[in-house]
Amino acid sequence: MILRLAHVVMAADDLDAAHAFYVDLLGFVEHRREPGALYLRGVEEFDTWSLCIVDRGAPGLLHSAFRVSDPADLDTLAAQHERLGLPHTRVAAGAEPGQGEALRVVSPDGHALEFVHELEQIDAYDADGRLRFPMRHSHTGHGIPPTRLDHVSLRVPRVADSLPYWLDELTFSASELWLDEHDEPHIAWVRRAPASHDVALGTNGEAAFHHVAYLVSDPSALLRAADLLGDARLASRLEWGPGRHGATNAFAMYVRDPAGNRLELYTGDYVRDHDHPPLCWRPADYAEQGHSWWGFPAPPSFAQTNPLHQAGWVPATVPASGQG
Amino acid sequence: MILRLAHVVMAADDLDAAHAFYVDLLGFVEHRREPGALYLRGVEEFDTWSLCIVDRGAPGLLHSAFRVSDPADLDTLAAQHERLGLPHTRVAAGAEPGQGEALRVVSPDGHALEFVHELEQIDAYDADGRLRFPMRHSHTGHGIPPTRLDHVSLRVPRVADSLPYWLDELTFSASELWLDEHDEPHIAWVRRAPASHDVALGTNGEAAFHHVAYLVSDPSALLRAADLLGDARLASRLEWGPGRHGATNAFAMYVRDPAGNRLELYTGDYVRDHDHPPLCWRPADYAEQGHSWWGFPAPPSFAQTNPLHQAGWVPATVPASGQG
Amino acid sequence: MILRLAHVVMAADDLDAAHAFYVDLLGFVEHRREPGALYLRGVEEFDTWSLCIVDRGAPGLLHSAFRVSDPADLDTLAAQHERLGLPHTRVAAGAEPGQGEALRVVSPDGHALEFVHELEQIDAYDADGRLRFPMRHSHTGHGIPPTRLDHVSLRVPRVADSLPYWLDELTFSASELWLDEHDEPHIAWVRRAPASHDVALGTNGEAAFHHVAYLVSDPSALLRAADLLGDARLASRLEWGPGRHGATNAFAMYVRDPAGNRLELYTGDYVRDHDHPPLCWRPADYAEQGHSWWGFPAPPSFAQTNPLHQAGWVPATVPASGQG
Amino acid sequence: MILRLAHVVMAADDLDAAHAFYVDLLGFVEHRREPGALYLRGVEEFDTWSLCIVDRGAPGLLHSAFRVSDPADLDTLAAQHERLGLPHTRVAAGAEPGQGEALRVVSPDGHALEFVHELEQIDAYDADGRLRFPMRHSHTGHGIPPTRLDHVSLRVPRVADSLPYWLDELTFSASELWLDEHDEPHIAWVRRAPASHDVALGTNGEAAFHHVAYLVSDPSALLRAADLLGDARLASRLEWGPGRHGATNAFAMYVRDPAGNRLELYTGDYVRDHDHPPLCWRPADYAEQGHSWWGFPAPPSFAQTNPLHQAGWVPATVPASGQG
Repeated sequence: MILRLAHVVMAADDLDAAHAFYVDLLGFVEHRREPGALYLRGVEEFDTWSLCIVDRGAPGLLHSAFRVSDPADLDTLAAQHERLGLPHTRVAAGAEPGQGEALRVVSPDGHALEFVHELEQIDAYDADGRLRFPMRHSHTGHGIPPTRLDHVSLRVPRVADSLPYWLDELTFSASELWLDEHDEPHIAWVRRAPASHDVALGTNGEAAFHHVAYLVSDPSALLRAADLLGDARLASRLEWGPGRHGATNAFAMYVRDPAGNRLELYTGDYVRDHDHPPLCWRPADYAEQGHSWWGFPAPPSFAQTNPLHQAGWVPATVPASGQG
Repeated sequence: MILRLAHVVMAADDLDAAHAFYVDLLGFVEHRREPGALYLRGVEEFDTWSLCIVDRGAPGLLHSAFRVSDPADLDTLAAQHERLGLPHTRVAAGAEPGQGEALRVVSPDGHALEFVHELEQIDAYDADGRLRFPMRHSHTGHGIPPTRLDHVSLRVPRVADSLPYWLDELTFSASELWLDEHDEPHIAWVRRAPASHDVALGTNGEAAFHHVAYLVSDPSALLRAADLLGDARLASRLEWGPGRHGATNAFAMYVRDPAGNRLELYTGDYVRDHDHPPLCWRPADYAEQGHSWWGFPAPPSFAQTNPLHQAGWVPATVPASGQG
Repeated sequence: MILRLAHVVMAADDLDAAHAFYVDLLGFVEHRREPGALYLRGVEEFDTWSLCIVDRGAPGLLHSAFRVSDPADLDTLAAQHERLGLPHTRVAAGAEPGQGEALRVVSPDGHALEFVHELEQIDAYDADGRLRFPMRHSHTGHGIPPTRLDHVSLRVPRVADSLPYWLDELTFSASELWLDEHDEPHIAWVRRAPASHDVALGTNGEAAFHHVAYLVSDPSALLRAADLLGDARLASRLEWGPGRHGATNAFAMYVRDPAGNRLELYTGDYVRDHDHPPLCWRPADYAEQGHSWWGFPAPPSFAQTNPLHQAGWVPATVPASGQG
Repeated sequence: MILRLAHVVMAADDLDAAHAFYVDLLGFVEHRREPGALYLRGVEEFDTWSLCIVDRGAPGLLHSAFRVSDPADLDTLAAQHERLGLPHTRVAAGAEPGQGEALRVVSPDGHALEFVHELEQIDAYDADGRLRFPMRHSHTGHGIPPTRLDHVSLRVPRVADSLPYWLDELTFSASELWLDEHDEPHIAWVRRAPASHDVALGTNGEAAFHHVAYLVSDPSALLRAADLLGDARLASRLEWGPGRHGATNAFAMYVRDPAGNRLELYTGDYVRDHDHPPLCWRPADYAEQGHSWWGFPAPPSFAQTNPLHQAGWVPATVPASGQG
């Protein structure tokens, strides 16, 4: 079964600028840098990395990966995608650093997804055998810092068309839905982990990337993040917030990275069991306090998305449904 | 499968005093009060209650309940306890308010446990059909307030003897272990939910109740809780903290309620997948910074426990193992 | 000598609505209510009141009062205003509740100002003689709550024309100035207390009232205030913020009260001795990060001001300069 | 007149260790280091330094300095100390870095005090002429960091004997007094600035040094400071707190530096005018919640003081009273 969002791979145009922003300014932990790719994590993560930034000359999303609870789940998921006629392929262990065998698929709504079980873990012990929590190094740290990957926000052609795949096939649970005047959902927050979402889906006419979100420890950390950007004379990168969301109830802020990717810093959403019906917002409700519980409209730039970079994700020779 | 801790039922000697403390001072939400019992929840909970306080003339614990993901899990768990020769009984829906059919057992380490699937949910919509998050009523609230039930801390005869039941039978995962000089665990943090623990188990020579813990929204809420107690001239009820734990990494505070039960207010532990080995503390490590990352020893009173009130939990006629 | 801003008297159209907003929602302490007037204070104030709201059928400002260190300062100030040819009059003790004899003047920039020494103090002891800090009643309180009056923001015909009165005559010190392209100040932050300002002066073409500001204890209190407004479905009253100011370095939020008066909630400005030259902002600096260190422009409504209600402040028969 | 505490000069046994602690760990700003002396400030200070640590092979206090509002105040204070028969001497500008002419005295209770008007200020503008608040460099900073010097805590032979000098001669105002069973004050909080104190005086039988206190921005900064010490495995240096004081109402924490000096980190005391009578605590009140509003007794080590290093402060040839 799918446990949670495990990592996101984003595109950028300048890895030095990405390093300066994510590591030097915000305090992401650098796990590894190799030519063309930067592997990062938040300070409370036990996986060695959760964000990879690769040089593609432009912003955007390559893929989102989810951890499954058992290696055999990859077989089940492969058979399922075969049945659904969706492109899929297996990649051997090591295709990404510290990662075991994985299954790569393209979702019906056009997104590159990966499923994996084995993820390299940080060494939680010092050289002298003493337990070291990753988050307990503030004396050598700086920045906010972000604690862990929370969710990815994807744009899809039509959310109502996407939900059967996410809910019925992948067994995600919708925590919240925004319904239009015809009661059709156009934004859905879906999750396998118990918090409000691992993935947000928004109707956009086409598949695109909206943002990746990292948790921070508490609201005061988010205010320090805004100050950090202001102090570094990067206030123009602060797109929206800090403020309280209506949907998810989180306290959050959106920032643009040097490449133009949108990073959300996020804290304080709720936890709710999976088998309860989604909380549904009606147009009058979300118009007023849905995006911002404090009533501030999103800036026009918030509608902008970044492209997908999925070329070669699943080999062209992978048979489509019925041809396997 | 077991999802999470769902509720705790505690004993008290004075329900009016309990109401004054939990509801009027700390801001727990009162779901229901009936003769001899008070049903409460935190402000971010969707279940209608998570803490029941019953009049027994003394502090202590009656039982801890866990939610299972499917009603059929009750059958599986009943068969499992039958196989283990452990006392167990089914109770019909409604035995506790808003609750479906449940299975009651006594664990090998002497604790009354309950498993249940169906739990009444709060109405998340207003009379006018508008979505209302439970936590978004600060304008009519007061107190800290606590957000949701986090964990229960149980004392057992010997943790090493308890772990096979919790880990192998109930499939909890140990997030952390404190090992003695012989590498035997004497405190274990175990969980079904992804955070650090649903249950803490500590070696005590006999089964007893140490504390129940509720989450608060962030560290500033916990400081307000300490001020609240000081302002109400109840500083003597503040037993330990606020401070950072070593184990679990949470920021926490222990308070004694009017009956003498210990309530922990808690925020900020980590999330970690279940299938990784527990983080193990050695004596030199926890002696220094295990209980308090800031180095403050627990007060002597912290070793005190409260008794169990389990009479009649499972009828005496329930057959023990081999007699079913 | 002038010590600090002591109180502000504002106009409103509905004292019940003002009570519901300031007392019931935000947590201001009600000192006294009498027909047509409501007397309030923050929870850390030792003066019995610092904000008076009077029924005038509309929002606006009646006067701002400053405390002087010695009763004899009133004579000095009266002589000074006589010399300057400015309207001034003495009012007997008790003209405002708990207040000693006062001097009322009209400033050259058209504002009603009051100077007073004697201000009734709260009783800091309980009936049993135990010391009670006013701020240590959180167990019976609610709301943010605001701690104390910080400053008043006045609009004047031309700041450059106002400064000789405020700086040379009243011996305020300018902490910061915003200079236009001709190096002429158009906003000035001036103070007698050591923090960034007791009074803000902004060029507006005519005398008007912009806002009154109260301190809150820390940034987390300000976030709770925003949530409080959102939860009460009053998000539309949240005009700007929460955010970091460039000028003053404070973390702040502007709210409109039911009458339309603008209330700033404010925390974290700096302290600086009076005899140092003002910190001067150039147009390029404040355009970018002056109002908002995080780069968010003020909403258009922020330029709106409220009128002055000064009729009868100083009797028409008070002789102007040279006629005394 | 005396404006405020301006700087404190402390002794240490190892300036490298002091640098590692104050600058590298806690985030004090290093203004200057010269052989045998380290000059530091908090991040919101406009004076170039407020803490000097000098190598004396042991912890302790050299002197405390106060800023006066006018250079001529030095003459007044010199005449006053001459009249009182107290040792005093003038030192030329530059005796301490960036400092104008000063007056050095020994108080009747045995403390080396300095009065000075001219203090070098930081350059608040960048090379490009843009205004730069000192606190707005979080992107290049680390540590808590402390914001500014708040107070110094001195032990004196008998507080009741000290008060006439501090209150009547130096015109400090007592904000709070702890009275013994005979109504004699044994701790006094006295100030020239409007907050709760610039100087704390405690009866000790002899003159000694208890602690120096720096402000932090808010309670969350103080919690980060405690984490910082824990993470650096310096929890043993955290002597008491974080917690709410009864006296002063501040949220505070006491830390021992590598030399053994006691540093208080402090935030949130109140502001009150000088001419009101002190708030008086009776034994039953401060026994319960005076030191700690949350009821935690001070550890035994908190009674320890550090010595004075005043040799040569005022030349031996300075005439005592009656010999001038």
